[in-house]
Amino acid sequence: MSQIKVAINGFGTIGKRVADAVDAQEDMTVIGVTKTGPSFGCELAVKKGFPLFCTSDEKESINKFKEEGYECKGGISDLLNLCDVVVDCSPGKLGKSNLEKYKSAEVKYIFQGGEKHELTGLSYTSSANHLENLNASGTRVVSCNTTGLSRTLVPLYELCGSLKVECTMIRRSADPGDSSKGPINAIKPVLKVPSHHGPDVMTIKPEIEINSLAVAVPTTIMHVHSIVADLPEDHGLSTDSILNIWKNTPRVIIMNGVKDKISTTAEVMEMARDIGRKWGDLHEIFVWEDGVKLVNNRLYYFQAIHQESDVIPENIDCIRALMGTESDWKKSVKKTDLAISKYYNID
Amino acid sequence: MSQIKVAINGFGTIGKRVADAVDAQEDMTVIGVTKTGPSFGCELAVKKGFPLFCTSDEKESINKFKEEGYECKGGISDLLNLCDVVVDCSPGKLGKSNLEKYKSAEVKYIFQGGEKHELTGLSYTSSANHLENLNASGTRVVSCNTTGLSRTLVPLYELCGSLKVECTMIRRSADPGDSSKGPINAIKPVLKVPSHHGPDVMTIKPEIEINSLAVAVPTTIMHVHSIVADLPEDHGLSTDSILNIWKNTPRVIIMNGVKDKISTTAEVMEMARDIGRKWGDLHEIFVWEDGVKLVNNRLYYFQAIHQESDVIPENIDCIRALMGTESDWKKSVKKTDLAISKYYNID
Amino acid sequence: MSQIKVAINGFGTIGKRVADAVDAQEDMTVIGVTKTGPSFGCELAVKKGFPLFCTSDEKESINKFKEEGYECKGGISDLLNLCDVVVDCSPGKLGKSNLEKYKSAEVKYIFQGGEKHELTGLSYTSSANHLENLNASGTRVVSCNTTGLSRTLVPLYELCGSLKVECTMIRRSADPGDSSKGPINAIKPVLKVPSHHGPDVMTIKPEIEINSLAVAVPTTIMHVHSIVADLPEDHGLSTDSILNIWKNTPRVIIMNGVKDKISTTAEVMEMARDIGRKWGDLHEIFVWEDGVKLVNNRLYYFQAIHQESDVIPENIDCIRALMGTESDWKKSVKKTDLAISKYYNID
Amino acid sequence: MSQIKVAINGFGTIGKRVADAVDAQEDMTVIGVTKTGPSFGCELAVKKGFPLFCTSDEKESINKFKEEGYECKGGISDLLNLCDVVVDCSPGKLGKSNLEKYKSAEVKYIFQGGEKHELTGLSYTSSANHLENLNASGTRVVSCNTTGLSRTLVPLYELCGSLKVECTMIRRSADPGDSSKGPINAIKPVLKVPSHHGPDVMTIKPEIEINSLAVAVPTTIMHVHSIVADLPEDHGLSTDSILNIWKNTPRVIIMNGVKDKISTTAEVMEMARDIGRKWGDLHEIFVWEDGVKLVNNRLYYFQAIHQESDVIPENIDCIRALMGTESDWKKSVKKTDLAISKYYNID
Repeated sequence: MSQIKVAINGFGTIGKRVADAVDAQEDMTVIGVTKTGPSFGCELAVKKGFPLFCTSDEKESINKFKEEGYECKGGISDLLNLCDVVVDCSPGKLGKSNLEKYKSAEVKYIFQGGEKHELTGLSYTSSANHLENLNASGTRVVSCNTTGLSRTLVPLYELCGSLKVECTMIRRSADPGDSSKGPINAIKPVLKVPSHHGPDVMTIKPEIEINSLAVAVPTTIMHVHSIVADLPEDHGLSTDSILNIWKNTPRVIIMNGVKDKISTTAEVMEMARDIGRKWGDLHEIFVWEDGVKLVNNRLYYFQAIHQESDVIPENIDCIRALMGTESDWKKSVKKTDLAISKYYNID
Repeated sequence: MSQIKVAINGFGTIGKRVADAVDAQEDMTVIGVTKTGPSFGCELAVKKGFPLFCTSDEKESINKFKEEGYECKGGISDLLNLCDVVVDCSPGKLGKSNLEKYKSAEVKYIFQGGEKHELTGLSYTSSANHLENLNASGTRVVSCNTTGLSRTLVPLYELCGSLKVECTMIRRSADPGDSSKGPINAIKPVLKVPSHHGPDVMTIKPEIEINSLAVAVPTTIMHVHSIVADLPEDHGLSTDSILNIWKNTPRVIIMNGVKDKISTTAEVMEMARDIGRKWGDLHEIFVWEDGVKLVNNRLYYFQAIHQESDVIPENIDCIRALMGTESDWKKSVKKTDLAISKYYNID
Repeated sequence: MSQIKVAINGFGTIGKRVADAVDAQEDMTVIGVTKTGPSFGCELAVKKGFPLFCTSDEKESINKFKEEGYECKGGISDLLNLCDVVVDCSPGKLGKSNLEKYKSAEVKYIFQGGEKHELTGLSYTSSANHLENLNASGTRVVSCNTTGLSRTLVPLYELCGSLKVECTMIRRSADPGDSSKGPINAIKPVLKVPSHHGPDVMTIKPEIEINSLAVAVPTTIMHVHSIVADLPEDHGLSTDSILNIWKNTPRVIIMNGVKDKISTTAEVMEMARDIGRKWGDLHEIFVWEDGVKLVNNRLYYFQAIHQESDVIPENIDCIRALMGTESDWKKSVKKTDLAISKYYNID
Repeated sequence: MSQIKVAINGFGTIGKRVADAVDAQEDMTVIGVTKTGPSFGCELAVKKGFPLFCTSDEKESINKFKEEGYECKGGISDLLNLCDVVVDCSPGKLGKSNLEKYKSAEVKYIFQGGEKHELTGLSYTSSANHLENLNASGTRVVSCNTTGLSRTLVPLYELCGSLKVECTMIRRSADPGDSSKGPINAIKPVLKVPSHHGPDVMTIKPEIEINSLAVAVPTTIMHVHSIVADLPEDHGLSTDSILNIWKNTPRVIIMNGVKDKISTTAEVMEMARDIGRKWGDLHEIFVWEDGVKLVNNRLYYFQAIHQESDVIPENIDCIRALMGTESDWKKSVKKTDLAISKYYNID
């Protein structure tokens, strides 16, 4: 089988993970990754055997790599000429100008959740709307938070036919490798009320009614969602049956805070390190079994999101959707997860 | 006017503040405070001129104070013989045995929110049920969180006649002077879902329907509440009118995150230090003006709670309620607040 | 007695404290404070009764205060016309341009440790070189760290006649009211080795040989110094005699980590709040009694520095030095400290 | 070649890493690991294919594993019957009683740095005293801090013939997976002065004179050492030549804070995650190139220690030393490191 040629534009927190995940799949290959200039990330790319390109096409920028001893294969245009699909993992708000490049190169494109839905007019999570994205020319994999909400809410919605949700997001303030951001000792509410986070779910499943509030807290390792979801009156579910649904949902992990001694996000991340995936990542959404409770038709639960990695497998599935090589999202998920969880699957 | 004689049993985080607040009032006096043994707290009590007693009646324990050079006036029984009312600020779960002492000494008693409502069968916040507590033999001033919810919810309830509330509490994990507790880098959900915090409001205002979820985060200075409150359909209110209600509510501060540059609890506490109350306390509940939004009949808002001090003025009002010396809660609040906010009132 | 007229240029972390400290003295008065524009700090100044001026002389800037309802008495030039001495508490590196203003206004001036010694050619701490600063036209009160080192090292030097010191500074990364700075979970070495901090001591006591290394850590409340000092061979001192020297040194507090249950900077700051000074400040340098050990001629000790406030009383003494009204530094210290420690002195 | 049979007594932070490291070597095999009872760690052991034993020999304890569905091969005595050498990774102070078991089973034994030198009378680091440990019946791999000091100091000592060192250790207060310990916002000095940490170096290289001071800070990821080392007068070295020595020293990494954008331990650990070893570990000691400076004969430098993992490869080398299968420490180091750094070596 010929492999899908994937370019990764930007090789930071998300880009380096997407590259490794693509590299682990049998049906796709990393045709190149971009860096703005020479740095430790270039060494990483080289050692992993990923061809290195420059985010710019300027000769001067390209030459800088050579001066520092890194072989640079060319600029972004050269890379786009070689690929079938580009995964945009560039920081900040370069979406608009990058989109033009991708379109003029006539390659398929995937943006990340840092960009707005309006840029692409189409968004993606594996469980919500894989089919809708099949053979599309480009899309946006939603943010880590929206992906996390999608994982637990979409299966509930599909059973119940309606869902009204309020979510308070307790967010990590900086990633583990970022020492510049605070706060050190404070809680920071996001004063846009309700916040933009929850409604973003509606870009991939418009039928779910959802609002959110958000605060940032002095931790680096995970977001936690505190969720209150109203089911329709005739839901026919119980706390246990909901737990069973999630136990059978891909990329959701159910563990018990007391029995498994996983009382905080620190222990969740330690469990992830034990499992042995690269970077100690946890692609799954973590739900505390003893933190779920259905009271009449109101469901309360907590879930934890590994902000650096939960969207990584979604990007892989999304590549298959755009290329039209796998129409069954569950089959894609299985393929993706087996390949990136080489050590062992948690269940 | 004769002064109410107040004993303070326990001179820690809450006890030392209640003692100072009593001392600042014209109609009451600190007849004595207790410590379990000699320590820096004794020096504090002595320098402030508060007579020192031992939490125990044992000779041996009492003598230890003298050995370290502190004059100890006797045991708890000696103190109870002198007072009209005792404010129980002892740590942990000494409620039951202390209650017996207070009853047998025939003094009025006030417990704190660490004890359960069942201990006293009666609870107190100034705005919710002052009259109900008038001349009672004993009661419980509810916790910092319940007090905080009471401050903003009771006036709303009184206008609307019904209120259904969900609250996520983002809690500080340790007080500023406590270096033993973690976590250092994690979020800890309270896995009793829904949590006990919200429903405690119903001990002082049973008509408010409320549930809560709670997480603890690595900060020492304030709790933050993320609140979603459903008003009745015919509420007739707006975001602005709700803000106006709170601006006229005692012990609630409204400031603007952007305009006043108070974006997190760090800046809130700095403002409190600027105001100049003892310990840098903030007795008021802090609401971000730009974090309040009414959408149809659903109200979203954030509030911050200074966990060490918001209950202090309630204890003072509560003393007056039990002693029957002031039946108008607003008058008591005014008296209390003027006395403890010597430097200046924020409004 | 006529009072020294003191202007405070800048009303932030240091400025607001210097203003209060001046206000508390009998021999000086706050003639005015400056702000760049209307903000909560203006309200603070107004309520405290400090005349408000603008850091700029531009009409437009001055008018902005009036628009927000604050009475602004004029620009910096107007203020300089009224004062005998200006304490420069402006942030960042405005030293050079401000110095010109002060000189042309022919007022005495005091800069803070954020400015370099070269700006003024003269630096100040109360215990090291008060006499040297007597009647000088201007000087610089050294930084919180240098002030802290000066407090414990100068008396040792004066006894021993020589001192070689290495100090590792474990620094708080942000002040309590600053939520923007990190790191949240990291240690940050200052990669200028040795660091500039230690040698700054030589600007006030050139005979002390000192170098330092510094790291920043995720805390907001105090710096800690880990100090190794080599005394001359014939020092004739013991751990106990050194402790006795410090117990008799102004603005040094000796307490016992174990006996007084003050094991970390959290408990030190809680003790400071208990003492009841404004902002919960601790003007003294805190030395752990059980963390001092003389091994042959090498002295090991820890000390903690309240970075927001230890220089405040030095500024007051420094005003007296420049104005020539008190030549005995110990007398000035006594006057200063009695006035700002109204509640009670720790010893 | 027949493989060395290694038992690992205790499968926590250190034990799980030693097991993986043994498993990765060609000349040794994991014959079994112990747990006190069923838990997530058992699942980990089972999935990795490590035979599971109980830390106790009691039938009741052993049966508990079966009840939870884990195959338990027997008690510690059964395991000791099967192995050539046991690596003791048990927590707390079980050293004495465990030592008796190992001796009576006539197996070689390795303790960790949590135990004192006196227990074994012999200690170990690869670079300091491999030969001395050859064919010994048992020893102790020193702590993460002592191992770290040994890595950079021993090669200096060997060149210079004498070394007097002062070290301030800025320690992480809890491991990443531990959410119970504080402080959240404080610096905690170790009030035993000088601390025990530095002198422990003398158990593996008695000729190095060393003292230390230690503080704990609110971070979870690395210790940092701030080191001042006095070389003999005739050292003949320069900052650059010292850097060159370390660049050629095994298990020391030199990188540049500015050029490599690694300004704090957060970025160091992120680099470690990028390299891709299990748990994101960094077995090497990290030295900031731009944080090293030789001033006359006094050397200043910072180094960072990954407290969870730097001793892991030392345990492997130590196994070979005790078994007498490799007398050249550098050959052992090479073998060890190639096997555990499958992804790539940083140099």
